[in-house]
Amino acid sequence: MKIKIGFGVDVHQLVEGRDLIVGGVNIPAELGALGHSDADVLLHSICDAMLGALNLRDIGFHFSDTDPKYKNIDSQILLRDTFKLVKEKGYVLGNLDATVILEKPKLNPHIPAMQKTIADILETDLDNISIKATTHEKVDSFGTQKALKAYVVCLLSKE
Amino acid sequence: MKIKIGFGVDVHQLVEGRDLIVGGVNIPAELGALGHSDADVLLHSICDAMLGALNLRDIGFHFSDTDPKYKNIDSQILLRDTFKLVKEKGYVLGNLDATVILEKPKLNPHIPAMQKTIADILETDLDNISIKATTHEKVDSFGTQKALKAYVVCLLSKE
Amino acid sequence: MKIKIGFGVDVHQLVEGRDLIVGGVNIPAELGALGHSDADVLLHSICDAMLGALNLRDIGFHFSDTDPKYKNIDSQILLRDTFKLVKEKGYVLGNLDATVILEKPKLNPHIPAMQKTIADILETDLDNISIKATTHEKVDSFGTQKALKAYVVCLLSKE
Repeated sequence: MKIKIGFGVDVHQLVEGRDLIVGGVNIPAELGALGHSDADVLLHSICDAMLGALNLRDIGFHFSDTDPKYKNIDSQILLRDTFKLVKEKGYVLGNLDATVILEKPKLNPHIPAMQKTIADILETDLDNISIKATTHEKVDSFGTQKALKAYVVCLLSKE
Repeated sequence: MKIKIGFGVDVHQLVEGRDLIVGGVNIPAELGALGHSDADVLLHSICDAMLGALNLRDIGFHFSDTDPKYKNIDSQILLRDTFKLVKEKGYVLGNLDATVILEKPKLNPHIPAMQKTIADILETDLDNISIKATTHEKVDSFGTQKALKAYVVCLLSKE
Repeated sequence: MKIKIGFGVDVHQLVEGRDLIVGGVNIPAELGALGHSDADVLLHSICDAMLGALNLRDIGFHFSDTDPKYKNIDSQILLRDTFKLVKEKGYVLGNLDATVILEKPKLNPHIPAMQKTIADILETDLDNISIKATTHEKVDSFGTQKALKAYVVCLLSKE
């Protein structure tokens, strides 16, 4: 069995007048995430981790943030397209572990919904999709509601 | 053999009047780590990495930072309880690699003591517990002694 | 087969009057990376990830940033020496996935050259060396051209 490791990290500014979409879930919040697409920091990091594991470049390479086609696009579409590339290489997801850094609101109540969305797209068990949420302890922009961040590690395997 | 990957990251502010406890070691320092527990950034990241690998939520879920029971608690207890959950799932630690970001003091002299503490709790060889220390090159809060951070990656395995 | 995981992260300030060397490639840029060696944030992170996977301490331990021997040194030499240590332990690289955070200039045109340099030193296929470049969305020092950062995860294996 071949095993590959991948890592993704993504950052978006928080601003007024935008939705806060994380892991495919629209979270009720005062501030939303700025970006060309729907700015889903979690799904973008997952895409980058899977692409990186197989040396398939990165999310910006496949889905350009200057292409009008991707303006405000639902990042679930990008995740689905990314997973198609993974399957074309003969790989499946082992597991992924994600950490979202956001000062507020609390993401915990929404994590089960995010997990279900992601597990469905990646054709895997819920247990292979771990999502953790934490604050940045009031430190710098991530700790003062000016931005949010997500880190993802994953293992992909091929029989 | 099943292999799972986990990732943990933790941040604490540095303030006067608190101890600086990292990896279970009380480090002589002008500033200490702010938090509800003993604010051990390294042990917290290890807990989160192991919990994440097995989709067992995160450290805040198991040990709430508003519960008086955990006020100033020794994080070695949290690590021990976390490892109990890992073993209940039938997994052992493969290895972990940690990086602590702290501008000063130098952590290097204390790393062997941290490794021994952690290896004992996680019932593994010292060689499976890597701890690296680095500065943040004077950049932002982590580079100006206002905060410290730790990253941990780990592999867990099950026969 | 034994599998080990490693993680490296490195930060350097961006300043005038220094070269910007990333992954062994001298990138045309207004600002360069400050450091004792050539300050190659990507190669340093790869060294740290491989050293951490095998509990061989970190780059600062092996190549001190106060030793005149390493003043302005080409970090490819450090990577080669690090890989020698990995091989002495009987391990080879499975794959690595790197992410470089830099607001500008765009690194993408230079990634194939970086990959070739690194794959040659680590005696592996290009496909095992993933390099992703992203901005920090104008957030904090990494988003305002005051610093750059690299994250690397890797798997090492031994028959």
